[in-house]
Amino acid sequence: MRVGYVQFNPVFGARQINFKKVQKLLKNVQADLLVLPELFATGYTFTSKQESHDLAEETGEETTIFLQNLAKDTGAVIVAGLPLKKQDKVYNAAIIVNDHEVIGMYEKIHLFNKEKLWFSPGDEGFKVFDIRPWKLGVMICWDWIFPESSRTLALMGADLIAHPTNLVLPYCQKAMTTRCIENHIFAITANRYGSEARGDDKFEFGGQSQITNPWGEVLSSGPKTGDSVDVIEIDPALSRDKKLTPLNDLLTDRREKYYRIS
Amino acid sequence: MRVGYVQFNPVFGARQINFKKVQKLLKNVQADLLVLPELFATGYTFTSKQESHDLAEETGEETTIFLQNLAKDTGAVIVAGLPLKKQDKVYNAAIIVNDHEVIGMYEKIHLFNKEKLWFSPGDEGFKVFDIRPWKLGVMICWDWIFPESSRTLALMGADLIAHPTNLVLPYCQKAMTTRCIENHIFAITANRYGSEARGDDKFEFGGQSQITNPWGEVLSSGPKTGDSVDVIEIDPALSRDKKLTPLNDLLTDRREKYYRIS
Repeated sequence: MRVGYVQFNPVFGARQINFKKVQKLLKNVQADLLVLPELFATGYTFTSKQESHDLAEETGEETTIFLQNLAKDTGAVIVAGLPLKKQDKVYNAAIIVNDHEVIGMYEKIHLFNKEKLWFSPGDEGFKVFDIRPWKLGVMICWDWIFPESSRTLALMGADLIAHPTNLVLPYCQKAMTTRCIENHIFAITANRYGSEARGDDKFEFGGQSQITNPWGEVLSSGPKTGDSVDVIEIDPALSRDKKLTPLNDLLTDRREKYYRIS
Repeated sequence: MRVGYVQFNPVFGARQINFKKVQKLLKNVQADLLVLPELFATGYTFTSKQESHDLAEETGEETTIFLQNLAKDTGAVIVAGLPLKKQDKVYNAAIIVNDHEVIGMYEKIHLFNKEKLWFSPGDEGFKVFDIRPWKLGVMICWDWIFPESSRTLALMGADLIAHPTNLVLPYCQKAMTTRCIENHIFAITANRYGSEARGDDKFEFGGQSQITNPWGEVLSSGPKTGDSVDVIEIDPALSRDKKLTPLNDLLTDRREKYYRIS
């Protein structure tokens, strides 16, 4: 399976410009799975709820169509972040598409800081998508800091995790090696880079998109700053045997009755 | 609060020699909390259940008395690993003592590889001990790979985690930075070093004992090989405010209803 990330520097509110940037970066790229950053087409630094509503889309609109065309051109399943409108709510979401269908949506469960002001928290739980013969889990950015996110996806049978991000803290890339070891799973973290100053906020996004294997080895790491696309071959089947020693299975060795959940 | 680890190379089955090694390393050391490795007085590489039973002790026996004298000499609460006999079972356990009492015991919940052949798995759950004014969680070695271990201790109110280890895999020290970030907690990992060859097994233990703060910063790191004692000043109160951003509290932001436990 050929999997990859697209790291770039979106311009706030300029959907068409961002589409063109991505399209250019993926010219002549072929893959089975491509992950784009969180909120890749709109930018990150919203300053009001009105703004996030104005830039949000429903499934099937402009961003969906762009991503499906991208799926057609690259042969890949695409996972990408967008502000998603559903009834009267807007979610920080990811859409999963191939060239002929919307495979699904994931609405971010753990919102970071002021995202709580602009978005509704995901209310459909974690989801694992069937992209035969593999099971794809999706989480978005800050979900990483809660070990329950990737653990839930692993328990649901995910072989790999697509992880669109807009990271402003320096911890995630190293932590993803632990997430992958503890669940014996692959992860593709697609981060943006560059700075964005709007309203009272100025963010620096740290790049360093990363593909991590079930032993916590970093198979690919993007630069801190700069466009970067990397596609590598992985075998997601390597995630399925959870035995780290002859007598230790990472999932069946769990002793649930001793775990507190609240 | 002055906390530290004792890293050394125990000799298998030679309790008195190991006591002397520890005593020598702690000569003139004063602290509030000292953590010794897993199975510090017996060594690790058991070859039969009979052997683990023969080297096991009940609370109050030789190892307890040694540790209480050590507590007297150093002024510290001591956490140390030992094979613990209770009724007809033997656990890979930790004992927590001060100069005048046994504060408690923790029986390792997640056994590593052949430990499953020599020990019974802990059946009393995770525990947090009151060492006023602080709350001390204890986990042993392989417990680290299950994020549920340190999460449970954090949810039980632990300010810091004492973590006796005999590490043979290279992942734990880096992972402890993630454990400390995700729970905003301190941890003291006390590892042994050296090699031990018995029966069919030969292990190399990796040293690098470590004190980690709630931001995942490594405050102290021992050598891969060699005796090492380090005592540093920490303020466990820094673990109590779980807000990593103005709007994000690492524990109350958890969305339990979406977490799978099995």
